[in-house]
Amino acid sequence: MSFNPLIEKIIEMKNPTVAGLDPKLDYVPQYIRTRCFEKYGRTLEGAAEALYEFNTGLIDALCDIVPAVKPQMAYYEMYGWQGVRTFARTVEYAKSKGMYVITDGKRNDIGATMEAYAAGHLGITDIDGEQIAAFGADALTVNGYLGTDGIDPLLKVCAALDKGIFVLVKTSNKSSGELQNLPLEGGESIYGRMACMCDEWGRELPGKYGFTGVGAVVGATYPEQLTELRKAHPSIFFLVPGYGAQGGGAKGLAGAFNKDGLGAVVNSSRAIMCAYKKEGCDEADFAGAARREALRMKDDINGAIR
Amino acid sequence: MSFNPLIEKIIEMKNPTVAGLDPKLDYVPQYIRTRCFEKYGRTLEGAAEALYEFNTGLIDALCDIVPAVKPQMAYYEMYGWQGVRTFARTVEYAKSKGMYVITDGKRNDIGATMEAYAAGHLGITDIDGEQIAAFGADALTVNGYLGTDGIDPLLKVCAALDKGIFVLVKTSNKSSGELQNLPLEGGESIYGRMACMCDEWGRELPGKYGFTGVGAVVGATYPEQLTELRKAHPSIFFLVPGYGAQGGGAKGLAGAFNKDGLGAVVNSSRAIMCAYKKEGCDEADFAGAARREALRMKDDINGAIR
Repeated sequence: MSFNPLIEKIIEMKNPTVAGLDPKLDYVPQYIRTRCFEKYGRTLEGAAEALYEFNTGLIDALCDIVPAVKPQMAYYEMYGWQGVRTFARTVEYAKSKGMYVITDGKRNDIGATMEAYAAGHLGITDIDGEQIAAFGADALTVNGYLGTDGIDPLLKVCAALDKGIFVLVKTSNKSSGELQNLPLEGGESIYGRMACMCDEWGRELPGKYGFTGVGAVVGATYPEQLTELRKAHPSIFFLVPGYGAQGGGAKGLAGAFNKDGLGAVVNSSRAIMCAYKKEGCDEADFAGAARREALRMKDDINGAIR
Repeated sequence: MSFNPLIEKIIEMKNPTVAGLDPKLDYVPQYIRTRCFEKYGRTLEGAAEALYEFNTGLIDALCDIVPAVKPQMAYYEMYGWQGVRTFARTVEYAKSKGMYVITDGKRNDIGATMEAYAAGHLGITDIDGEQIAAFGADALTVNGYLGTDGIDPLLKVCAALDKGIFVLVKTSNKSSGELQNLPLEGGESIYGRMACMCDEWGRELPGKYGFTGVGAVVGATYPEQLTELRKAHPSIFFLVPGYGAQGGGAKGLAGAFNKDGLGAVVNSSRAIMCAYKKEGCDEADFAGAARREALRMKDDINGAIR
C-alpha cells in the first residue's frame, strides 16, 4: 500500500539512493555498441540490444549496494518499440536481482486511460481472463496537473499490489518555477498546493514508516523548498533528482530527510552510468566504475544527513 | 513549423475532427480476438495483434473522410512492448494512408530527457550516424507543468520537421479544475496562465493560417472556457477531447472555432471505435459503423460551427 518495500531496502542497505537508468547510446561503452551493431546493424534493434547489455552490467554491479533503479522511459521510447522492449527486459532483470524499480514516465491522463497506464506500468493487464503484468514496476512517476481523476486509478492499483507513485511537485530544472512557483490567491504556491493534494491522495495508502504511497518529486537543486516541504508534509516520501550532474550537492539534501534519516531517495543517473568516462578507466570496467561512484554517492549523502 | 498540414487536411475534407485510437481489447470485435488468440494465445502479443487488425480496419474506413487519428499511448503500453509495437505499426499505417497522426502521450520532462521524447515521437533518432524515425508522428500532446525547459526541445524538432505539439491547458475531466481553475494572485487562472505560456512558446512556430505549432488541449466539456480561450488566444490551435462519450455536445463546441470555422480539431474515440456495438450491426461491419459515426459527427460539428 505504500513505499514500505523501498524504505526497507534503504534501511537494510543504509543507502537512500536510486540509480537512474537513462541510457543514451553515447553512454554505452564502444565495445558493446560495436558488438551489437555487428550483430543487428545500426538499427533500433541494435541500439536497444546495446542498451540492454549496458543496463544489465550496471544492475549486476549495483544490486547489492543500491536499493533501487529508475529507468527513464524517454530514453527507451527514443529507440522505438525495440527500446521499450529493452525497458521491459530491464525492469524484469532488475527485479530478478532484488532491486526496487521506479519507472520514470511522468504519466498523466484521466479515468479509463489512466487505468490503462496504471495496469500497464504497475498492475495487471487482463487478456480475456489471462492476468499478465505488462511492465510490472514497483512505482511510477506521475504528473498531477489533471487532478484527482488522474490519480485515483493509480491509488487502486497501489493499494491492491503494494506499489507507490511519485507526483511531480517541485522539479529540479531551472524553469520549474515558471508555473510551479506562482503564488495562488492567499499566497500558497502551485507546488505547495500540489504537495497538499499529495497528502490528500496519500490518505488511502498509509505506510508503516509514516510515509504514504503517494510520494513527491522534489529537485535537489532547490534545497529551500526541500526543507520547507519536508517540514510541512512529514508523510510524503520524496524522490529527489538533480543531485550531481544537475548541480544539487549533498549538503542541500539534508533538509529532505527527517530526524530518523528517512524521507527521501536521491537519484543519480549520468554520474553513475558514465563514471567510467569521468574516471578515465578502461571502458570494459564501466560497471566497476559505476559501483565506485554509487558507493561514493552513498557516503556523500549519508555524511550530509546523519 | 506548425499545424499547417493538419489544417490543410481539415479544410480539404471539410472535417475538423480526429478519430481517437484508444483500443481496449473489449472494443475489438470478438472474431478478431478469437483469431489472434488462436494464433498467438491469450498473450500480450495476441492482444497487440488484435489491436493492430482493429486499428487498420478503422483507418481504412476513415482515411478518406477524417483528417487525423490520435492513438492514445496508454492503451498500447497496457499491452507491454508488444502493444507499443502495435502503436508504432499503427502510426506507420495511418501515415501510409495519408492521415495526420497526433500521438496522445501527454509527455513531459526536461532538457536531454525531453529531447529524447521529442526525437522518439516526432523527430529522428541518431544511431551512430544512421537517422531513424522511431515513431514518427506529426504531433504530440504534452504537459507543461515543468515550464520552458520541457517545451524547448520539442520546439526545435517541430521547427525542423514541420510538426506540432498540443499542451494541456484545460482538460475535459471533472476534476480538472482542482488545480487548473485555481486563481493566481491577480486573478488569472492556472489554465489561463498555461495558455499564455503556449502563446509565448508558439512565437517560434508561426503558421500560415494564423495558428502556431503550439496548440492547446481544451475539453469539450467546458464550453465557457473554450470560448474564453478562443477569444484570448486567436493563434492557438485547439485539440478538443470530451465530445460525445464524455458528455460534451456539438453546440458547446462553437466557441472553439473562429469566424473562418477554423481553430480546433475535435476528438472522438469510443463513439467511433465502438459504433458497431451502439448500432447493433454485425461486428464484421465494425469499420462501416465507425465510418457512419464519423460522418454523423462531422455533420453534427459542422452544423454547430457554421
